[in-house]
Amino acid sequence: MTWSPDGMPLYALVMAGGAGTRFWPLSRRSRPKQMLPFAQGRSLLASTVERLAPLVPLERTLVATSLEMADAVRAELPQLPVRNLLAEPTGRDTAACVGWAAWRMARSNPKAVMVVVPADHLIPDGSALRTALAGAAATAAARGGLVTLALRPTHAETGYGYLELGEVMGAAAGRPVQVVKRFVEKPSRALAEEFVAAGNYCWNSGMFAWTVEAIRGAIREHLPELAAGLDELMAAADELGEEEAVRQRYASLPRVSVDFGVMEKAKPVWAVGVDFAWSDVGSWAGLAEALPSQDAGVTMGDVVALDTSGSVLVSEGPLVAVVGVHDLVVVATPDAVLVVPKDQAQRVKELVERLREGGRDELL
Amino acid sequence: MTWSPDGMPLYALVMAGGAGTRFWPLSRRSRPKQMLPFAQGRSLLASTVERLAPLVPLERTLVATSLEMADAVRAELPQLPVRNLLAEPTGRDTAACVGWAAWRMARSNPKAVMVVVPADHLIPDGSALRTALAGAAATAAARGGLVTLALRPTHAETGYGYLELGEVMGAAAGRPVQVVKRFVEKPSRALAEEFVAAGNYCWNSGMFAWTVEAIRGAIREHLPELAAGLDELMAAADELGEEEAVRQRYASLPRVSVDFGVMEKAKPVWAVGVDFAWSDVGSWAGLAEALPSQDAGVTMGDVVALDTSGSVLVSEGPLVAVVGVHDLVVVATPDAVLVVPKDQAQRVKELVERLREGGRDELL
Repeated sequence: MTWSPDGMPLYALVMAGGAGTRFWPLSRRSRPKQMLPFAQGRSLLASTVERLAPLVPLERTLVATSLEMADAVRAELPQLPVRNLLAEPTGRDTAACVGWAAWRMARSNPKAVMVVVPADHLIPDGSALRTALAGAAATAAARGGLVTLALRPTHAETGYGYLELGEVMGAAAGRPVQVVKRFVEKPSRALAEEFVAAGNYCWNSGMFAWTVEAIRGAIREHLPELAAGLDELMAAADELGEEEAVRQRYASLPRVSVDFGVMEKAKPVWAVGVDFAWSDVGSWAGLAEALPSQDAGVTMGDVVALDTSGSVLVSEGPLVAVVGVHDLVVVATPDAVLVVPKDQAQRVKELVERLREGGRDELL
Repeated sequence: MTWSPDGMPLYALVMAGGAGTRFWPLSRRSRPKQMLPFAQGRSLLASTVERLAPLVPLERTLVATSLEMADAVRAELPQLPVRNLLAEPTGRDTAACVGWAAWRMARSNPKAVMVVVPADHLIPDGSALRTALAGAAATAAARGGLVTLALRPTHAETGYGYLELGEVMGAAAGRPVQVVKRFVEKPSRALAEEFVAAGNYCWNSGMFAWTVEAIRGAIREHLPELAAGLDELMAAADELGEEEAVRQRYASLPRVSVDFGVMEKAKPVWAVGVDFAWSDVGSWAGLAEALPSQDAGVTMGDVVALDTSGSVLVSEGPLVAVVGVHDLVVVATPDAVLVVPKDQAQRVKELVERLREGGRDELL
């Protein structure tokens, strides 16, 4: 079921600027996680944009990424209008990126309502996501303030930020709307366990909704330097064209996240509670949990496995042939093969570091 | 130290006809074990011929292989005289191959003394091997009969044939010469343990020495059909050329091993006991035992290993990067990657069988 936005001028920002080494050797500098084919053979980025499309058409969807990845993103999203790609010449974290998009949208439609989603999450039930985002957008339009999607924690994860939620103030698209009392950065194990036991804490999903007016107001209030920089950038764009203005000025915007720079300071912030299946696919082990599993585990590409279980077996090149292995990650590309026990999957970073030290740049 | 053959007309036959799947994906139909670079980056075949060279020069060394592998063998041994490659159009087991070589050598020199070695064994101490072969050759020349090199068993191996040895009759090159009382095919575990405990059993190495006269006499006596076939083949060679004669007649020679067809029936058979380091490199696990080991285990090619032990890590293409694995075999080529626990290395055969059933001939 798709909740209808009832004529609300809904816009989307897809944040696709992430880098990272946790999916090496599939991920490379020029091909980070959001470009990997983890969504039934399609990239996380393409599937994110597709998932939004019934709610927000491509003409009103902006995709932000780095200048280096811009060509790859265009290739992945051939139907995205050229102008809708926000290519950051240098990373200035999420507040600048959200701000750029909001300033742009304000010019298209001052009444725009904006949803923000990361490009590298796995959410199998697109309809549930759209319903939640539409509910969050309606909440933002009706109540003002900033809205975040709050994920019910399934375990005491220490890798995510948490939201402390207050009482239920209403409902949106059938889900509770609560005020956010506090943002908590990645907690200790003990604290995470307390949060999960307490019941009024949720994971901060990184998915947001707000009116363009509200987010611009919040940036003006809490990050005035960013607001001024964006005003100047847009003025320069009128003279020089946006590409040149961005090239000259983007690097001078303050570097801060939208969570730390805006959300943690703004009032009110609303949370719309959601409970659809979700994964930020944080590692090869996370992929094994997020994707449907066959006998051998999760397999992608040309794989032959005998007497194998609980494994992640991925090929983008050579046949991967395994026998008698359990809970192992094997990833093969034409130039590199990774083998690591699933419960040590995060140690891929150590390998990448070793390659970097060894000057093996061609593999990174 | 190299024992000097004192003017003895010494010839060698290197048997390089073996096939097999135990080193897949490095080994393929066109590239069996003897072609693999397991001797410090050189092939077992090339290192075998090199090891013999101070004792038997290339001009008196014959190399037998299959017609399909002939080009690969020539490429591996560019200095071998063309005529010295015996290319079998169809495999007729070792008696025919030994016979062909003996009939050939008899034409070169009726007094020839012949040593026979497989091309796919790993023997780090070439000098010790040459001393033993020279001693065996001298024994053959002095005593007549057939001589085999007997390896002192290091464990109750069930994959080898055993020799039951009688009393010590003398010495050759400092090693005992004993009469072989009995050949025993690959025994049961219990029998192998008995043999090792008994002390008068050795492994049959597959390395032999005999005068050409003695082996031709033994073939005539115990395999008269083979002797007649070889007589006819050599006569036909005089008319048609050897290549054409072999093409027409080799397939009609009886198919039998030299052990079963000749050695087990001939009298006397002498054993020269040897105790140099030796491996027939029967599997990836066997390779790990035969080669010098670093921290991670045995590594070949482009390998990065962190916190890894007891493993066999081989690359002939993509970088192999492993972290946190133990006693694992990882072998990468441009078109296939194998991962199997070391103690299940023999199960490579199951994978190869699966690929064959799946019609993946390009990988075999």
